[in-house]
Amino acid sequence: MGRPRTPLLDRERIGATALELLDDHGEFSVPQVARRLGVQTGSVYHHVDGRAGVIELVRERVSASIDTATLDLGPWDTALAAWARSYRAAFAAHPHAIPLLMTSPVRAPKVLAQYERAVRLLLDVGFPVERVMTVITALENLVLGSALDLAAPETMWELPAGSPGTENLADALAATGPGRADAAFELALAAFMEHCRALGPTPSHPPDAHPGPSGA
Amino acid sequence: MGRPRTPLLDRERIGATALELLDDHGEFSVPQVARRLGVQTGSVYHHVDGRAGVIELVRERVSASIDTATLDLGPWDTALAAWARSYRAAFAAHPHAIPLLMTSPVRAPKVLAQYERAVRLLLDVGFPVERVMTVITALENLVLGSALDLAAPETMWELPAGSPGTENLADALAATGPGRADAAFELALAAFMEHCRALGPTPSHPPDAHPGPSGA
Repeated sequence: MGRPRTPLLDRERIGATALELLDDHGEFSVPQVARRLGVQTGSVYHHVDGRAGVIELVRERVSASIDTATLDLGPWDTALAAWARSYRAAFAAHPHAIPLLMTSPVRAPKVLAQYERAVRLLLDVGFPVERVMTVITALENLVLGSALDLAAPETMWELPAGSPGTENLADALAATGPGRADAAFELALAAFMEHCRALGPTPSHPPDAHPGPSGA
Repeated sequence: MGRPRTPLLDRERIGATALELLDDHGEFSVPQVARRLGVQTGSVYHHVDGRAGVIELVRERVSASIDTATLDLGPWDTALAAWARSYRAAFAAHPHAIPLLMTSPVRAPKVLAQYERAVRLLLDVGFPVERVMTVITALENLVLGSALDLAAPETMWELPAGSPGTENLADALAATGPGRADAAFELALAAFMEHCRALGPTPSHPPDAHPGPSGA
Protein backbone atom coordinates (compact mmCIF):
# COMPACT_ATOMS: atom_id res chain seq x y z
CA MET A 1 0.00 0.00 0.00
CA GLY A 2 2.87 2.45 -0.61
CA ARG A 3 5.82 3.23 1.58
CA PRO A 4 4.97 5.59 4.40
CA ARG A 5 7.03 8.70 3.69
CA THR A 6 6.80 9.92 7.23
CA PRO A 7 7.95 7.93 10.23
CA LEU A 8 5.28 9.36 12.50
CA LEU A 9 2.02 8.24 10.95
CA ASP A 10 0.17 7.28 14.08
CA ARG A 11 -3.40 7.51 15.25
CA GLU A 12 -2.67 10.73 17.11
CA ARG A 13 -1.57 12.51 13.94
CA ILE A 14 -4.42 11.09 11.88
CA GLY A 15 -6.99 12.39 14.38
CA ALA A 16 -5.29 15.77 14.63
CA THR A 17 -5.16 16.13 10.85
CA ALA A 18 -8.80 15.16 10.34
CA LEU A 19 -9.81 17.71 12.99
CA GLU A 20 -7.68 20.38 11.30
CA LEU A 21 -9.43 19.68 8.00
CA LEU A 22 -12.83 19.91 9.71
CA ASP A 23 -11.87 23.19 11.35
CA ASP A 24 -10.52 24.62 8.09
CA HIS A 25 -13.01 23.29 5.56
CA GLY A 26 -15.99 21.94 7.51
CA GLU A 27 -15.38 18.38 6.35
CA PHE A 28 -12.69 15.80 5.80
CA SER A 29 -12.08 12.73 3.70
CA VAL A 30 -9.54 9.99 4.37
CA PRO A 31 -7.68 10.77 1.11
CA GLN A 32 -7.42 14.42 2.23
CA VAL A 33 -6.03 13.33 5.59
CA ALA A 34 -3.47 11.16 3.78
CA ARG A 35 -2.50 13.99 1.42
CA ARG A 36 -1.96 16.41 4.28
CA LEU A 37 0.20 13.82 6.04
CA GLY A 38 2.15 13.10 2.85
CA VAL A 39 1.21 9.43 2.77
CA GLN A 40 -0.97 7.27 0.60
CA THR A 41 -4.59 6.70 1.57
CA GLY A 42 -3.93 3.00 2.14
CA SER A 43 -1.36 3.85 4.78
CA VAL A 44 -4.00 5.65 6.81
CA TYR A 45 -6.24 2.60 6.59
CA HIS A 46 -3.44 0.54 8.13
CA HIS A 47 -3.93 2.50 11.34
CA VAL A 48 -7.68 3.01 11.55
CA ASP A 49 -10.85 1.13 10.81
CA GLY A 50 -12.14 3.15 7.86
CA ARG A 51 -13.64 6.62 7.91
CA ALA A 52 -15.65 5.71 11.01
CA GLY A 53 -12.38 5.01 12.78
CA VAL A 54 -11.05 8.45 11.89
CA ILE A 55 -14.26 10.02 13.21
CA GLU A 56 -13.66 8.28 16.53
CA LEU A 57 -10.12 9.69 16.64
CA VAL A 58 -11.63 13.14 16.12
CA ARG A 59 -14.14 12.45 18.90
CA GLU A 60 -11.37 11.42 21.29
CA ARG A 61 -9.39 14.51 20.45
CA VAL A 62 -12.27 16.96 20.94
CA SER A 63 -13.50 15.16 24.06
CA ALA A 64 -10.01 15.19 25.58
CA SER A 65 -10.58 18.89 26.28
CA ILE A 66 -13.58 18.14 28.49
CA ASP A 67 -12.54 18.36 32.12
CA THR A 68 -13.80 15.02 33.40
CA ALA A 69 -12.69 15.87 36.93
CA THR A 70 -15.87 17.97 37.00
CA LEU A 71 -17.78 14.70 37.37
CA ASP A 72 -16.08 14.15 40.74
CA LEU A 73 -17.32 17.44 42.16
CA GLY A 74 -20.08 17.48 44.74
CA PRO A 75 -22.94 17.80 45.05
CA TRP A 76 -24.04 15.91 41.95
CA ASP A 77 -25.83 18.87 40.37
CA THR A 78 -22.72 21.02 40.64
CA ALA A 79 -20.81 18.18 38.97
CA LEU A 80 -23.31 17.81 36.13
CA ALA A 81 -23.49 21.55 35.42
CA ALA A 82 -19.69 21.91 35.50
CA TRP A 83 -19.33 18.96 33.13
CA ALA A 84 -21.89 20.57 30.80
CA ARG A 85 -19.97 23.86 30.75
CA SER A 86 -16.69 22.14 30.04
CA TYR A 87 -18.32 19.94 27.39
CA ARG A 88 -19.73 23.02 25.65
CA ALA A 89 -16.37 24.81 25.68
CA ALA A 90 -14.58 21.77 24.23
CA PHE A 91 -17.02 21.42 21.32
CA ALA A 92 -17.45 25.14 20.72
CA ALA A 93 -13.77 25.18 19.74
CA HIS A 94 -14.62 22.84 16.84
CA PRO A 95 -18.13 23.70 15.62
CA HIS A 96 -17.78 21.77 12.35
CA ALA A 97 -17.14 18.59 14.31
CA ILE A 98 -20.45 18.88 16.17
CA PRO A 99 -22.91 17.64 13.51
CA LEU A 100 -20.49 14.90 12.45
CA LEU A 101 -19.95 13.60 15.97
CA MET A 102 -23.64 13.91 16.88
CA THR A 103 -24.66 11.67 14.02
CA SER A 104 -22.00 8.95 14.26
CA PRO A 105 -22.15 6.15 16.84
CA VAL A 106 -19.78 6.54 19.80
CA ARG A 107 -17.12 3.83 19.90
CA ALA A 108 -14.02 5.62 21.22
CA PRO A 109 -13.07 3.86 24.48
CA LYS A 110 -12.04 7.04 26.30
CA VAL A 111 -15.31 8.70 25.40
CA LEU A 112 -17.33 5.67 26.45
CA ALA A 113 -15.45 5.80 29.76
CA GLN A 114 -16.60 9.40 30.19
CA TYR A 115 -20.22 8.40 29.60
CA GLU A 116 -19.75 5.62 32.16
CA ARG A 117 -18.74 8.20 34.75
CA ALA A 118 -21.71 10.43 33.96
CA VAL A 119 -24.10 7.46 34.13
CA ARG A 120 -22.65 6.37 37.46
CA LEU A 121 -22.99 9.88 38.87
CA LEU A 122 -26.70 9.89 38.08
CA LEU A 123 -27.29 6.32 39.27
CA ASP A 124 -25.43 7.05 42.53
CA VAL A 125 -27.87 9.82 43.44
CA GLY A 126 -30.95 7.85 42.61
CA PHE A 127 -31.96 8.61 39.03
CA PRO A 128 -34.00 5.68 37.73
CA VAL A 129 -31.80 3.63 35.39
CA GLU A 130 -34.37 3.88 32.59
CA ARG A 131 -34.19 7.70 32.65
CA VAL A 132 -30.42 8.11 32.76
CA MET A 133 -29.66 8.09 29.02
CA THR A 134 -32.61 10.39 28.36
CA VAL A 135 -31.27 12.87 30.90
CA ILE A 136 -27.75 12.70 29.46
CA THR A 137 -29.00 13.04 25.87
CA ALA A 138 -31.20 16.02 26.75
CA LEU A 139 -28.23 17.71 28.42
CA GLU A 140 -25.99 16.98 25.43
CA ASN A 141 -28.55 18.41 23.02
CA LEU A 142 -28.66 21.71 24.84
CA VAL A 143 -24.88 21.70 25.32
CA LEU A 144 -24.17 21.05 21.64
CA GLY A 145 -26.91 23.34 20.34
CA SER A 146 -25.41 26.06 22.51
CA ALA A 147 -21.89 25.21 21.36
CA LEU A 148 -22.98 25.71 17.74
CA ASP A 149 -24.61 28.98 18.72
CA LEU A 150 -21.25 30.18 20.08
CA ALA A 151 -19.98 29.99 16.49
CA ALA A 152 -22.77 32.32 15.35
CA PRO A 153 -22.06 35.98 14.66
CA GLU A 154 -22.76 38.29 17.60
CA THR A 155 -25.24 40.14 15.35
CA MET A 156 -27.42 37.20 14.41
CA TRP A 157 -30.47 39.13 13.17
CA GLU A 158 -30.00 41.77 10.49
CA LEU A 159 -33.08 43.92 10.16
CA PRO A 160 -33.77 46.18 7.19
CA ALA A 161 -33.45 49.91 7.86
CA GLY A 162 -36.34 51.15 9.95
CA SER A 163 -37.33 47.54 10.76
CA PRO A 164 -40.73 47.75 9.05
CA GLY A 165 -42.93 44.99 10.46
CA THR A 166 -40.29 43.82 12.93
CA GLU A 167 -40.44 46.62 15.47
CA ASN A 168 -40.78 44.33 18.48
CA LEU A 169 -37.85 42.20 17.34
CA ALA A 170 -35.80 45.38 16.91
CA ASP A 171 -36.70 46.50 20.45
CA ALA A 172 -35.85 43.10 21.90
CA LEU A 173 -32.51 43.03 20.08
CA ALA A 174 -31.66 46.54 21.22
CA ALA A 175 -32.47 45.62 24.82
CA THR A 176 -30.31 42.47 24.77
CA GLY A 177 -26.94 42.82 26.48
CA PRO A 178 -23.66 41.41 25.19
CA GLY A 179 -22.92 37.71 25.60
CA ARG A 180 -26.25 36.54 24.18
CA ALA A 181 -24.92 33.02 23.58
CA ASP A 182 -23.60 32.57 27.13
CA ALA A 183 -26.78 33.97 28.67
CA ALA A 184 -28.93 31.64 26.58
CA PHE A 185 -26.85 28.61 27.53
CA GLU A 186 -26.96 29.46 31.24
CA LEU A 187 -30.73 29.94 31.07
CA ALA A 188 -31.26 26.57 29.42
CA LEU A 189 -28.82 24.89 31.80
CA ALA A 190 -30.49 26.41 34.87
CA ALA A 191 -33.86 25.19 33.60
CA PHE A 192 -32.46 21.73 32.98
CA MET A 193 -30.81 21.47 36.40
CA GLU A 194 -33.95 22.59 38.22
CA HIS A 195 -35.94 19.96 36.39
CA CYS A 196 -33.37 17.28 37.17
CA ARG A 197 -33.30 18.16 40.87
CA ALA A 198 -37.04 17.53 40.96
CA LEU A 199 -36.82 14.45 38.77
CA GLY A 200 -33.93 12.40 39.90
CA PRO A 201 -32.74 11.95 43.42
CA THR A 202 -35.22 10.77 45.99
CA PRO A 203 -35.79 13.45 48.63
CA SER A 204 -34.38 11.16 51.29
CA HIS A 205 -31.07 11.02 49.45
CA PRO A 206 -29.10 14.15 50.36
CA PRO A 207 -27.25 15.26 47.24
CA ASP A 208 -24.02 16.15 49.06
CA ALA A 209 -23.75 12.63 50.43
CA HIS A 210 -22.55 11.60 46.98
CA PRO A 211 -19.07 10.13 47.46
CA GLY A 212 -17.93 10.64 43.88
CA PRO A 213 -17.16 7.91 41.38
CA SER A 214 -14.37 5.67 42.56
CA GLY A 215 -12.63 4.81 39.33
CA ALA A 216 -11.93 5.60 35.66
CA MET B 1 -22.88 36.53 -17.94
CA GLY B 2 -24.11 33.82 -20.31
CA ARG B 3 -27.59 33.13 -21.58
CA PRO B 4 -29.83 31.40 -19.07
CA ARG B 5 -30.54 28.02 -20.63
CA THR B 6 -33.62 27.45 -18.52
CA PRO B 7 -36.60 29.76 -18.46
CA LEU B 8 -37.38 29.04 -14.85
CA LEU B 9 -34.32 30.22 -12.99
CA ASP B 10 -35.97 31.96 -10.08
CA ARG B 11 -35.21 32.33 -6.41
CA GLU B 12 -37.51 29.47 -5.55
CA ARG B 13 -35.55 27.02 -7.68
CA ILE B 14 -32.20 28.32 -6.48
CA GLY B 15 -33.19 27.80 -2.84
CA ALA B 16 -34.63 24.36 -3.55
CA THR B 17 -31.49 23.29 -5.39
CA ALA B 18 -29.11 24.54 -2.69
CA LEU B 19 -31.14 22.65 -0.08
CA GLU B 20 -31.05 19.50 -2.23
CA LEU B 21 -27.28 19.77 -2.42
CA LEU B 22 -27.07 20.22 1.36
CA ASP B 23 -29.30 17.22 1.92
CA ASP B 24 -27.34 15.07 -0.52
CA HIS B 25 -23.77 16.16 0.17
CA GLY B 26 -23.78 18.15 3.39
CA GLU B 27 -22.75 21.36 1.68
CA PHE B 28 -23.33 23.48 -1.38
CA SER B 29 -21.51 26.04 -3.48
CA VAL B 30 -23.06 28.54 -5.86
CA PRO B 31 -21.28 26.98 -8.88
CA GLN B 32 -22.75 23.60 -7.87
CA VAL B 33 -26.22 25.14 -7.68
CA ALA B 34 -25.71 26.65 -11.14
CA ARG B 35 -24.49 23.34 -12.58
CA ARG B 36 -27.48 21.45 -11.22
CA LEU B 37 -29.79 24.07 -12.72
CA GLY B 38 -27.95 23.96 -16.06
CA VAL B 39 -27.01 27.64 -15.98
CA GLN B 40 -23.82 29.59 -15.54
CA THR B 41 -22.79 30.71 -12.08
CA GLY B 42 -23.21 34.36 -13.06
CA SER B 43 -26.86 33.74 -13.86
CA VAL B 44 -27.47 32.64 -10.27
CA TYR B 45 -25.84 35.83 -9.03
CA HIS B 46 -28.34 37.83 -11.08
CA HIS B 47 -31.06 36.56 -8.76
CA VAL B 48 -29.42 36.50 -5.33
CA ASP B 49 -26.97 38.55 -3.33
CA GLY B 50 -24.03 36.16 -3.25
CA ARG B 51 -23.70 32.95 -1.29
CA ALA B 52 -25.24 34.64 1.75
CA GLY B 53 -28.33 35.30 -0.35
CA VAL B 54 -28.59 31.62 -1.27
CA ILE B 55 -28.27 30.68 2.41
CA GLU B 56 -31.25 32.94 3.15
CA LEU B 57 -33.28 31.19 0.44
CA VAL B 58 -32.44 27.89 2.13
CA ARG B 59 -33.49 29.36 5.49
CA GLU B 60 -36.83 30.51 4.05
CA ARG B 61 -37.42 27.11 2.54
CA VAL B 62 -36.67 25.13 5.70
CA SER B 63 -38.54 27.60 7.92
CA ALA B 64 -41.60 27.49 5.66
CA SER B 65 -42.31 24.06 7.18
CA ILE B 66 -42.62 25.54 10.67
CA ASP B 67 -46.28 25.89 11.54
CA THR B 68 -46.39 29.53 12.62
CA ALA B 69 -50.07 29.24 13.50
CA THR B 70 -48.77 27.54 16.66
CA LEU B 71 -47.77 31.01 17.86
CA ASP B 72 -51.45 32.01 17.92
CA LEU B 73 -52.41 29.18 20.27
CA GLY B 74 -53.24 29.93 23.87
CA PRO B 75 -52.11 29.98 26.54
CA TRP B 76 -48.70 31.36 25.66
CA ASP B 77 -46.76 28.38 27.00
CA THR B 78 -48.80 25.99 24.86
CA ALA B 79 -48.00 28.22 21.88
CA LEU B 80 -44.28 28.33 22.60
CA ALA B 81 -43.99 24.57 23.13
CA ALA B 82 -45.99 23.82 19.95
CA TRP B 83 -43.82 26.23 17.96
CA ALA B 84 -40.70 24.49 19.35
CA ARG B 85 -41.98 21.06 18.30
CA SER B 86 -42.84 22.24 14.81
CA TYR B 87 -39.49 24.07 14.53
CA ARG B 88 -37.62 20.89 15.50
CA ALA B 89 -39.53 18.79 12.96
CA ALA B 90 -38.85 21.29 10.16
CA PHE B 91 -35.11 21.36 10.79
CA ALA B 92 -34.76 17.66 11.58
CA ALA B 93 -35.77 17.03 7.95
CA HIS B 94 -32.59 18.88 6.86
CA PRO B 95 -29.90 18.20 9.46
CA HIS B 96 -27.05 19.43 7.24
CA ALA B 97 -28.70 22.83 7.03
CA ILE B 98 -28.68 23.26 10.81
CA PRO B 99 -25.03 24.24 11.43
CA LEU B 100 -25.04 26.45 8.33
CA LEU B 101 -28.19 28.32 9.31
CA MET B 102 -27.16 28.58 12.97
CA THR B 103 -23.96 30.36 12.06
CA SER B 104 -25.21 32.76 9.37
CA PRO B 105 -27.05 36.00 10.21
CA VAL B 106 -30.80 35.92 9.67
CA ARG B 107 -31.94 38.29 6.92
CA ALA B 108 -34.80 36.46 5.22
CA PRO B 109 -37.89 38.68 5.64
CA LYS B 110 -40.32 35.80 6.21
CA VAL B 111 -38.08 34.36 8.90
CA LEU B 112 -37.63 37.74 10.59
CA ALA B 113 -41.44 38.04 10.59
CA GLN B 114 -41.62 34.73 12.43
CA TYR B 115 -39.19 35.97 15.08
CA GLU B 116 -41.31 39.12 15.37
CA ARG B 117 -44.33 36.98 16.23
CA ALA B 118 -42.42 34.97 18.82
CA VAL B 119 -41.03 38.16 20.41
CA ARG B 120 -44.51 39.70 20.53
CA LEU B 121 -45.93 36.57 22.16
CA LEU B 122 -43.39 36.81 24.98
CA LEU B 123 -43.73 40.58 25.39
CA ASP B 124 -47.53 40.27 25.48
CA VAL B 125 -47.41 38.00 28.53
CA GLY B 126 -44.94 40.12 30.41
CA PHE B 127 -41.45 38.79 29.71
CA PRO B 128 -38.98 41.65 30.29
CA VAL B 129 -37.84 42.96 26.91
CA GLU B 130 -34.19 42.49 27.82
CA ARG B 131 -34.74 38.74 28.41
CA VAL B 132 -36.77 37.94 25.30
CA MET B 133 -33.94 37.17 22.85
CA THR B 134 -32.14 35.13 25.52
CA VAL B 135 -35.27 33.05 26.03
CA ILE B 136 -35.77 32.55 22.29
CA THR B 137 -32.09 31.70 21.71
CA ALA B 138 -32.08 29.19 24.56
CA LEU B 139 -35.18 27.53 23.13
CA GLU B 140 -33.65 27.44 19.64
CA ASN B 141 -30.46 25.87 20.96
CA LEU B 142 -32.32 23.00 22.54
CA VAL B 143 -34.62 22.68 19.51
CA LEU B 144 -31.75 22.56 17.02
CA GLY B 145 -29.51 20.38 19.18
CA SER B 146 -32.43 17.96 19.45
CA ALA B 147 -33.10 18.19 15.71
CA LEU B 148 -29.50 17.15 15.01
CA ASP B 149 -29.90 14.31 17.50
CA LEU B 150 -32.88 13.04 15.47
CA ALA B 151 -30.41 12.41 12.65
CA ALA B 152 -28.28 10.23 14.93
CA PRO B 153 -28.46 6.45 14.67
CA GLU B 154 -30.87 4.82 17.13
CA THR B 155 -27.90 2.88 18.53
CA MET B 156 -25.69 5.81 19.40
CA TRP B 157 -23.30 4.02 21.78
CA GLU B 158 -21.53 0.89 20.58
CA LEU B 159 -19.93 -0.92 23.48
CA PRO B 160 -17.28 -3.60 23.07
CA ALA B 161 -18.39 -7.17 23.82
CA GLY B 162 -18.91 -7.66 27.54
CA SER B 163 -18.69 -3.89 28.09
CA PRO B 164 -15.55 -4.04 30.24
CA GLY B 165 -15.36 -0.83 32.27
CA THR B 166 -18.66 0.46 30.98
CA GLU B 167 -21.08 -1.77 32.84
CA ASN B 168 -23.25 1.06 34.14
CA LEU B 169 -23.51 2.59 30.68
CA ALA B 170 -24.51 -0.81 29.31
CA ASP B 171 -27.22 -1.14 31.98
CA ALA B 172 -28.53 2.35 31.31
CA LEU B 173 -28.63 1.72 27.56
CA ALA B 174 -30.41 -1.60 28.03
CA ALA B 175 -33.01 0.08 30.27
CA THR B 176 -33.70 2.89 27.80
CA GLY B 177 -36.88 2.50 25.79
CA PRO B 178 -37.27 3.30 22.10
CA GLY B 179 -37.59 6.88 20.96
CA ARG B 180 -34.57 8.13 22.92
CA ALA B 181 -34.34 11.31 20.83
CA ASP B 182 -38.00 12.27 21.32
CA ALA B 183 -37.89 11.53 25.04
CA ALA B 184 -34.76 13.66 25.46
CA PHE B 185 -36.28 16.55 23.55
CA GLU B 186 -39.50 16.44 25.57
CA LEU B 187 -37.54 16.33 28.83
CA ALA B 188 -35.48 19.39 27.88
CA LEU B 189 -38.57 21.21 26.60
CA ALA B 190 -40.53 20.48 29.79
CA ALA B 191 -37.62 21.81 31.85
CA PHE B 192 -37.41 24.91 29.71
CA MET B 193 -41.13 25.63 29.85
CA GLU B 194 -41.25 25.20 33.64
CA HIS B 195 -38.40 27.66 33.98
CA CYS B 196 -40.07 30.14 31.64
CA ARG B 197 -43.36 29.97 33.50
CA ALA B 198 -41.51 31.02 36.65
CA LEU B 199 -39.40 33.59 34.85
CA GLY B 200 -41.59 35.49 32.51
CA PRO B 201 -45.16 36.47 33.09
CA THR B 202 -45.93 38.41 36.23
CA PRO B 203 -48.20 36.37 38.52
CA SER B 204 -50.93 38.98 38.15
CA HIS B 205 -51.02 38.33 34.41
CA PRO B 206 -53.11 35.21 33.81
CA PRO B 207 -51.52 33.35 30.90
CA ASP B 208 -54.80 32.44 29.24
CA ALA B 209 -55.78 36.11 29.03
CA HIS B 210 -53.30 36.40 26.17
CA PRO B 211 -55.28 37.51 23.11
CA GLY B 212 -52.81 36.17 20.56
CA PRO B 213 -50.77 38.25 18.18
CA SER B 214 -52.89 40.26 15.81
CA GLY B 215 -50.78 40.08 12.66
CA ALA B 216 -48.40 37.93 10.65
